Amino acid sequence: MKANSSSHLRQPRAPGIITPNRWLSERVFNTIIGCFKRHGAETIDTPVFEIKETLTGKYGEDSKLIYDLKDQGGELLSLRYDLTVPFARYLAMNKISNIKRYHIAKVYRRDNPAMTRGRYREFYQCDFDIAGQYDPMIPDAECLKIVHEILSELELGDFRIKVNDRRILDGMFAVCGVPDKKFRTICSTVDKLDKMSWEDVRSEMVKEKGLSEEAADQIGQYVSMQGGKDLAERLLQDAKMSQSKQACAGLTDMKQLFSYLELFQVTDKVVFDLSLARGLDYYTGVIYEAILTQNGPVSAPETGEKGEEGVSVGSVAGGGRYDGLVGMFDPKGRKVPCVGVSIGIERVFSILEQKAEASAEKVRTTETQVMVASAQKNILLIFN
Amino acid sequence: MKANSSSHLRQPRAPGIITPNRWLSERVFNTIIGCFKRHGAETIDTPVFEIKETLTGKYGEDSKLIYDLKDQGGELLSLRYDLTVPFARYLAMNKISNIKRYHIAKVYRRDNPAMTRGRYREFYQCDFDIAGQYDPMIPDAECLKIVHEILSELELGDFRIKVNDRRILDGMFAVCGVPDKKFRTICSTVDKLDKMSWEDVRSEMVKEKGLSEEAADQIGQYVSMQGGKDLAERLLQDAKMSQSKQACAGLTDMKQLFSYLELFQVTDKVVFDLSLARGLDYYTGVIYEAILTQNGPVSAPETGEKGEEGVSVGSVAGGGRYDGLVGMFDPKGRKVPCVGVSIGIERVFSILEQKAEASAEKVRTTETQVMVASAQKNILLIFN
Repeated sequence: MKANSSSHLRQPRAPGIITPNRWLSERVFNTIIGCFKRHGAETIDTPVFEIKETLTGKYGEDSKLIYDLKDQGGELLSLRYDLTVPFARYLAMNKISNIKRYHIAKVYRRDNPAMTRGRYREFYQCDFDIAGQYDPMIPDAECLKIVHEILSELELGDFRIKVNDRRILDGMFAVCGVPDKKFRTICSTVDKLDKMSWEDVRSEMVKEKGLSEEAADQIGQYVSMQGGKDLAERLLQDAKMSQSKQACAGLTDMKQLFSYLELFQVTDKVVFDLSLARGLDYYTGVIYEAILTQNGPVSAPETGEKGEEGVSVGSVAGGGRYDGLVGMFDPKGRKVPCVGVSIGIERVFSILEQKAEASAEKVRTTETQVMVASAQKNILLIFN
Repeated sequence: MKANSSSHLRQPRAPGIITPNRWLSERVFNTIIGCFKRHGAETIDTPVFEIKETLTGKYGEDSKLIYDLKDQGGELLSLRYDLTVPFARYLAMNKISNIKRYHIAKVYRRDNPAMTRGRYREFYQCDFDIAGQYDPMIPDAECLKIVHEILSELELGDFRIKVNDRRILDGMFAVCGVPDKKFRTICSTVDKLDKMSWEDVRSEMVKEKGLSEEAADQIGQYVSMQGGKDLAERLLQDAKMSQSKQACAGLTDMKQLFSYLELFQVTDKVVFDLSLARGLDYYTGVIYEAILTQNGPVSAPETGEKGEEGVSVGSVAGGGRYDGLVGMFDPKGRKVPCVGVSIGIERVFSILEQKAEASAEKVRTTETQVMVASAQKNILLIFN
């Protein structure tokens, strides 16, 4: 057998976590799975690749990050980009209209990895989704409760869960004078507000995406707003916002959502934030994202220099409502309302590993407790 | 959002297990992982794709089943075909010369699926490997002990573990007059003896691979032999076999292996079988394969018609020694002796699921034990 000339010691760039601390990862997985099960979810498994078309048109501007398989004379396949689209395809295919499911598996993105911050091209997602008809906002509130439970239990430090609604965003775009066909692309730009300053975002809207300065400035006023139930109530009275039926529907649901969050006693961490947009095309209602607010050594400092890719705080969970996705796969377009959340475990690992290192915990990689050694050979024969 | 015209309800053909019985799969995984841990192994994770060249020239005639990723302007990547080659690459890359590791993950093959028998294009492998210098045959015997423990504990019915050695095969080919350069291809044909009759195998050797009839007939005499330590001793005295140094080395090790297997009390299930060849290129010494001998409803009947693809009994585990593989990835060719075993869990699931169905066990998919229901809406408000 001959060595391959150039493959010595190479692996794909930033493929994913290779040797997570075993104890840590078991603890994290057990915490997450325990919470998902406590909330009544079962698990299902979908394949790592999907028919290419299944993924087409679901992810907005990020679709370019999808890995395609080579056409080897069979079907055109792509590696899954997330666990949500395969789940929706699975529901349509199996005519399931009501399920709570969790799925912990790897997804694949042709991204520029930032390994020190726990971003990889192959990484785990831990998804929990509720499909089916429920009273408005009850499953949505449950998803937020789950994020709250898991992040608290993992002791990652302080966190915030930002909440918004696609209908509020779309209503806001409408009343600010954004043309209908530019909603999604402007939404993508708003989504960058966690990494870029408002000035840069405004400039992208006006110069790259051809939005009027006036519209951009009006958006700028809204996206700086943060609050709770009170903000939703105030915006329902807002002269401009109240003109949009969509925005009003979203704001009414937001009020309802906060009522449930109060009952669940999680409002301390949840903030209604009009700058939250999320990039994916398939969201139709509530959207949310959890961020850690105490930057560990993993994140770049908030002041002065920006970290890798200029991101200062890591998002560790995100999700939202996608009521139209299952219908896209159903021949008769039957809709199944869905809401879900995805937890990004690599960032959690990064943070907890550094915490463990800082506290100089001893890390063991096997569970062996007793080792029998012999001063001579043939120990097996002796013991017999 | 518009539906994709032709992607309705499609998923890739036979991608893998979608909804394994949750309780069953947890039991199976726990049994396997428990055994691996008991034997002192830690787990590591390698990426789902490797640089294409890493996989080149490792799998013999099955290399055509490797899934390649599309060239999207980066590296040429392939999906992992097994967990062994990525493990060897990992050892070389991280300069590890001694480790016991297990890895449970999916692998990918562009195969014709036979779903009823638990064969898929995406499937789990449960691998246990020992890398490093040990007294001869101790780690090899441990791998067989592990297979014995797991198959017994899973209660799959009766089984046999066939054992052979690549050096015995190569020595046998040499003394039977097979030209050196035909060793691997003749070995691939011998490997089909579990699915094809000797007549068909002989015909392929002679007509397709150009072997002389005399050589083929001599091979035919050897590959019909089965036994234990006694057979190894007899072959060491065999006029022809004893002429091959390679064969003698293999036979001596086989005797030693059976001594350890006697100590481990597993010889009841292990048979030295000269027809066992295994297709992969990278084996250098002992090879083995476990088959279930009590055909459940999953396998085709032994008499009369043959099942899908004419295979009558499913192999559920296999492995062997690969002392040259790590060296192929090391710039200086430093070798790390390795031996390992891989358990194919889908077949195990198939069999156990059918057993469960036959015994009409009730299958639950969630762990919910109590459900609180209300005859009116707003239950959350009431409870508060």
